[in-house]
Amino acid sequence: MTRQQLIQLLKDMPLQEKVNQMLQVAGNFYMDDTVITGPMKENGFTEENISQAGSVLGALGASKIKEIQRNYMEKHPHKIPLLFMLDIINGFRTIFPIPLGQGATFEPELSEKLAAAAAKEAAVSGLHVTFAPMVDLVRDARWGRVMESTGEDTYLNCLFSEAMVRGFQGDDLKAPYKIAACVKHFAGYGAPTAGRDYNTVELSEHTLREFYLPSYKAGIDAGAALVMTSFNTINGVPATGNKWLMRHILREEMGFDGVLISDWAAIEEIIYHGYCEDRKEAAVRAAEAGVDIDMMTGIYSEHLTTLIEEGILDETLIDEAVLRILELKNKLGLFENPYKDADETKEKEIILCEEHKALAREAARKSLVLLKNEGVLPLKKGQHLAFIGPYTDNRSMSGSWSFIGRPEDTLTLREAALEFLDSTEAAFHPGCSLLGNDIHLEGFTEQTGEPVSPVQQQKMLTEAIEAAKKADLVIMPLGEHYVQSGEATSNANIQIPEIQQTLFNKIYQVNQNIAVILFSGRPLDIRALSHKAKAILQVWMPGTEGAHAIMDVITGTFSPSGKLPMSFPYSVGQVPVHYNEYATGRPYTGADKDRFRSKYLDIPNAPLYPFGYGLSYTTFSISPIELDKSAMTKTETIQASITIKNEGSLPGTEVIQLYIHDRAATVVRPVKELKHFRKIHLQPGESQKVTFHITDQDLRFLTEHSRLESEPGTFDLYIGTDSTTTNQTRFTLLP
Amino acid sequence: MTRQQLIQLLKDMPLQEKVNQMLQVAGNFYMDDTVITGPMKENGFTEENISQAGSVLGALGASKIKEIQRNYMEKHPHKIPLLFMLDIINGFRTIFPIPLGQGATFEPELSEKLAAAAAKEAAVSGLHVTFAPMVDLVRDARWGRVMESTGEDTYLNCLFSEAMVRGFQGDDLKAPYKIAACVKHFAGYGAPTAGRDYNTVELSEHTLREFYLPSYKAGIDAGAALVMTSFNTINGVPATGNKWLMRHILREEMGFDGVLISDWAAIEEIIYHGYCEDRKEAAVRAAEAGVDIDMMTGIYSEHLTTLIEEGILDETLIDEAVLRILELKNKLGLFENPYKDADETKEKEIILCEEHKALAREAARKSLVLLKNEGVLPLKKGQHLAFIGPYTDNRSMSGSWSFIGRPEDTLTLREAALEFLDSTEAAFHPGCSLLGNDIHLEGFTEQTGEPVSPVQQQKMLTEAIEAAKKADLVIMPLGEHYVQSGEATSNANIQIPEIQQTLFNKIYQVNQNIAVILFSGRPLDIRALSHKAKAILQVWMPGTEGAHAIMDVITGTFSPSGKLPMSFPYSVGQVPVHYNEYATGRPYTGADKDRFRSKYLDIPNAPLYPFGYGLSYTTFSISPIELDKSAMTKTETIQASITIKNEGSLPGTEVIQLYIHDRAATVVRPVKELKHFRKIHLQPGESQKVTFHITDQDLRFLTEHSRLESEPGTFDLYIGTDSTTTNQTRFTLLP
Repeated sequence: MTRQQLIQLLKDMPLQEKVNQMLQVAGNFYMDDTVITGPMKENGFTEENISQAGSVLGALGASKIKEIQRNYMEKHPHKIPLLFMLDIINGFRTIFPIPLGQGATFEPELSEKLAAAAAKEAAVSGLHVTFAPMVDLVRDARWGRVMESTGEDTYLNCLFSEAMVRGFQGDDLKAPYKIAACVKHFAGYGAPTAGRDYNTVELSEHTLREFYLPSYKAGIDAGAALVMTSFNTINGVPATGNKWLMRHILREEMGFDGVLISDWAAIEEIIYHGYCEDRKEAAVRAAEAGVDIDMMTGIYSEHLTTLIEEGILDETLIDEAVLRILELKNKLGLFENPYKDADETKEKEIILCEEHKALAREAARKSLVLLKNEGVLPLKKGQHLAFIGPYTDNRSMSGSWSFIGRPEDTLTLREAALEFLDSTEAAFHPGCSLLGNDIHLEGFTEQTGEPVSPVQQQKMLTEAIEAAKKADLVIMPLGEHYVQSGEATSNANIQIPEIQQTLFNKIYQVNQNIAVILFSGRPLDIRALSHKAKAILQVWMPGTEGAHAIMDVITGTFSPSGKLPMSFPYSVGQVPVHYNEYATGRPYTGADKDRFRSKYLDIPNAPLYPFGYGLSYTTFSISPIELDKSAMTKTETIQASITIKNEGSLPGTEVIQLYIHDRAATVVRPVKELKHFRKIHLQPGESQKVTFHITDQDLRFLTEHSRLESEPGTFDLYIGTDSTTTNQTRFTLLP
Repeated sequence: MTRQQLIQLLKDMPLQEKVNQMLQVAGNFYMDDTVITGPMKENGFTEENISQAGSVLGALGASKIKEIQRNYMEKHPHKIPLLFMLDIINGFRTIFPIPLGQGATFEPELSEKLAAAAAKEAAVSGLHVTFAPMVDLVRDARWGRVMESTGEDTYLNCLFSEAMVRGFQGDDLKAPYKIAACVKHFAGYGAPTAGRDYNTVELSEHTLREFYLPSYKAGIDAGAALVMTSFNTINGVPATGNKWLMRHILREEMGFDGVLISDWAAIEEIIYHGYCEDRKEAAVRAAEAGVDIDMMTGIYSEHLTTLIEEGILDETLIDEAVLRILELKNKLGLFENPYKDADETKEKEIILCEEHKALAREAARKSLVLLKNEGVLPLKKGQHLAFIGPYTDNRSMSGSWSFIGRPEDTLTLREAALEFLDSTEAAFHPGCSLLGNDIHLEGFTEQTGEPVSPVQQQKMLTEAIEAAKKADLVIMPLGEHYVQSGEATSNANIQIPEIQQTLFNKIYQVNQNIAVILFSGRPLDIRALSHKAKAILQVWMPGTEGAHAIMDVITGTFSPSGKLPMSFPYSVGQVPVHYNEYATGRPYTGADKDRFRSKYLDIPNAPLYPFGYGLSYTTFSISPIELDKSAMTKTETIQASITIKNEGSLPGTEVIQLYIHDRAATVVRPVKELKHFRKIHLQPGESQKVTFHITDQDLRFLTEHSRLESEPGTFDLYIGTDSTTTNQTRFTLLP
């Protein structure tokens, strides 16, 4: 349709029909002949409203969605098709590493491919919109939803935000296999106080703008069709009713003209925040803030028409929101083809196809981060191995957003190992249950299974100890249960479950040659493990091909190249911790003995493993930095080069990282900020010169005048292999 | 002098002489014939500048100060007297409980007396200004300087801020024994990220204004003559160079017209923040922000004159600062009597006089908080006791700001106990050293002493265990070393030293009848102790009369009445935690089983011991709330009453607390806010009706229009004995 036709359609729609476009309901409202009565009716979910709802979430499958769409359109007065939406995060049925693992690849272009593959599987299953990417900046590992982020760095998050939006959407939403992306959660959702999900966010406006907002902006600039509101407050006002945030920042400053959707029931929740007396006032606040779609509350359908009739709200508010929704449907081509890519035959061909599984394996391999290695990895031939740990026989390694994926699609580590090893070469013992019986995850019994009896636990432990005694090397696949990270999974203690710590210590007593394979959705406090284990491979939640990928890496088929996208804290008492902190007036270098420095008495300031860190099976040397000139004007470029050489005997990949520090500015600047990076693959003995171009854009920040601009002065420049690099020089930006 | 005379004096002063009034140096610059050469000279500390410096910090003693003043004035071209300043926090030589302990008294009028007593001792010792009170709001027990705050509640902090300022200053600074107060640290210093001292502060402007600024304002409104800048940044700009904060908020909005002094070397530190290129620029930034006195850097003296001569700064900036300094000297009457109250004879009479010691004992008794008591306290006659713990024989219980106090002024617990008990009734054993040999506090060897040998530790432990076996009740005085809290004492682990945990567990194995006397400068994670001990008495750092006060309480001579001014967290993974948090959109009540609530998976949301909590030796009942009416207009008052009854068999004191929750507002409101409280003393069986008057003022907050006003609607009203009270009713504010 043309825009003119859309506007005409809008004019033809009665007020309540328009309002109903702003309603989003669950797919099951259209299935099994749901009868809407009682409380649901009182909450605005009348049969008429539902029969005209603009979008649906949670339905999937080509056949089912086509049936819902057909039935819906038959009854709809203006034959406006439904939009089908779902959380497609790290894959659809083929599950890729969790986003935090994808962050570790330092390869946004790979995530673009993953998003495109996920979109393809979703599109043939009838879906039009995904609630992804989540681009929230994260600094606190207590918050379990860090697993859905790409980490603590603004620049890296921007690149992944853009890449994922491009992957899902392509250039044209009408094109086959493309779905609309929804950048979330606007804004600042990743910074809840004390790491407790949904909690108050305390950020200065400067930090919000400088570090938290850019990744949303990057996704919007890449064309994201939707943005989702966040649950938290910003400056004391819930985002979902926050006019300043949504009208001023999102619409005016960022120029977003797509659809703004509430998070699940978020319009109702502004009442619980204590922001509104009742549902009617919540409707006013959300509509005035410019929230176009009301996810799952019925508040809009119940109140907007009355509010307009009473003159409290202006109908133009509704018209602009509905026009945005209609435009999205039009961009997807739904007026011409309401079923878009939904196709039962293609579902069979595309879903879990070899190409997608290969992508999953590639991504998983690249997401693995080798944190420590005292020569035990890769595995040597002729060793007798014991795999001991609850992830030995566990298929659930896809993270908490993998509900369409199925455990049976995934090999266990034992199964994958037996593709690489002879069964005589290795023993396999879980050693203990994943959680033990001390941890009770309310509402998760289906996922966590029945408790294991003490007798059985003892038996598992005894068998494992016996196997460890006989092994040359013990490989311990340990970690969090996949439901321990994700939404609403905040933890005050960020260690592996106690039963696994006990297992580790018992095994360590009989065999100190241990390589830990660590599964988690968040950075953990692994100080105790790190002290004792000979090797630690951080594998996140690696997805459908996780077990293969782990075997690829530990056998040396693939040399590890992942880099931490988020600091691993020294202990929970150190969070929030991140590499790009602001300088203080009393910086602590460790060298000086002055008591009055910004430091802890009992732990270091530095995290255990820093941002950008990750080992390879080979070693690289990096030359000092060469600059083509030591000063530049704002229109010039400085070329900064290093030479990297593979000094070891195996091929390997390194991520060369460039950081900048503005030494004096009208608003204090981080001690280091990632500005460029490049992934380099080198054969043994091979070397390569790597040149970065520094332009004024790399030096810009929000100055005291709140303008994004650079300020002349001296800058520290670092090039190295992680955020603690001391390979440094200086240059000057001339006035 | 009249103001006119001061202005004339200002006009008579050459520029550099004026600038030197803005310099503050250490007292030792005037003692032992310090020769200023080399680096100090380069830093602006020339002999001429020092000979004209406007103020001095760190000197004390009537004789010494009179000598410095006499010599100084003889040489000063305009005979302007020096101001003598010092940190007089919880007492001068007679040490009162640390401010956090004073917060626990819920008795600001008592702190007013303490401040007055401290001022008296300081004044006769020649001092004119104290760097107190510190009124920073605190929510994170990792920050060791919480000991110098009165806690997490804005209202309580405001009352203590006013009371302390009144206590130090009285109505007239010229009057005998009065010194000028300095409200610090402006602003937000109590909220460093991750509890690390001097670290970045992240607060939304709303939270800064609503919760953090009022206690400074209260002190200023009470007439505080000085304000001190804070070390941290606000919105990315160091406070000491923050024009918005100092000119707009402090001067214009708060109407402060006194002297603004930098914290120690803070003007120089804005360079290390990365806010200025060099010292000259730092001078510009601080002067433009309106910092009147440069504490200990020489930057002003070195650069201001040149900056004015170069036309970069306007001389009026200097004139207004110097006039404020001269006015302060004039208010203190120094032009008429430059020695003010300095008097060697009075020093002997007043310092550590019986009246002050009695005050110290009263304050210490009232600051003690009984956290748990399963019938073991007060002590019963005829029991055999064992005092086991490193505070048994330790005199250092006055906190880190007690450097004028002397250990020999303080009894040990053993000594105090023997005033109450016969030596046959009790055994006394330290059991271990305070810190053990794992904790190394750099720069504190003088305070922490020589390490104790393992053999000696074992001997101490063995003796203690034997004594515990023979005791009916073990009293364990445990806790932090006094240097573990205070400035620059951030800790990621907030438990008592491990050696003491071990001691506790060993004793527990032989005798489970344990009452812990807990010394600390911060809320600690005492979950393990709390689970096992029969009683816990939190005694903070109780000061000169601490041991007496503890014995008064545990013997039942004085019934405990202290209430926590700061939450004791469940674990360090829960911080920052405070009772008056904002509501969220997904509040967790504990009752509902919905997974998607704002909570932790592994610990409760609630702290272990909440704000306002503290037991007595008796029990009180509180009746339901009675209101004289259920609705009021903004000009009316609601009377809310309860009847409290002492239901036990001992007299006791209770702090009745009134909390309000605004159920819906244009900016989200805390779930509860303390608005009134009253301390009630009742005999056994006695009851009393307590009536509070609720006015519009109790309902005001910073609305969406940033105006301090109330909004009509429904309010929850709670009256009870701590912040978790469920004794609740509702009322309405009418439009």
